[in-house]
Amino acid sequence: MTPEKTDNSFFVGEKPLMNYVTAAVMHFTAKNAPEITLKARGKFMGTAIDASQVITNRFLKDQAHIHDVRLGSEEFTNKEGRKVRVSTIEINIRRK
Amino acid sequence: MTPEKTDNSFFVGEKPLMNYVTAAVMHFTAKNAPEITLKARGKFMGTAIDASQVITNRFLKDQAHIHDVRLGSEEFTNKEGRKVRVSTIEINIRRK
Repeated sequence: MTPEKTDNSFFVGEKPLMNYVTAAVMHFTAKNAPEITLKARGKFMGTAIDASQVITNRFLKDQAHIHDVRLGSEEFTNKEGRKVRVSTIEINIRRK
Repeated sequence: MTPEKTDNSFFVGEKPLMNYVTAAVMHFTAKNAPEITLKARGKFMGTAIDASQVITNRFLKDQAHIHDVRLGSEEFTNKEGRKVRVSTIEINIRRK
């Protein structure tokens, strides 16, 4: 998963934390987006949570807050043909 | 962090996922608790999310759901005297 963006969503993956923080903050400030959503799966969920904290406690402390957190599961078949389950998180951040 | 329990809270740490799942499900079913909260910090947040999914999608599929998810940050001073920030998660699971 790369930090691609669909609408106001950012997919958090293996890049450094600050890449996602910067991209999301820019989207908020420069593009004046009303909300952003950080999405991640599996081991990258922690990075998405860290990013949400840096965004709402530091860069956009007075401007944005965590509005909603959704947890979920996805199942897919891996290369070896085995069914694998992975957890997902979506963190919705909105203007105050 | 060990899987200690205060009231209906379970602190998720480095033990195997199923330890936390079993402890929480038992608390729900045997002790008839109205709710449980899974709490974790840093790299263990993913384990807490995984546990919430196994609990609500498999063991207590018809009995419980994720009611609320709270994200936060804690700062502490490590052994080297450096200030360290860590993200936290609390997942509240309630009876349907």
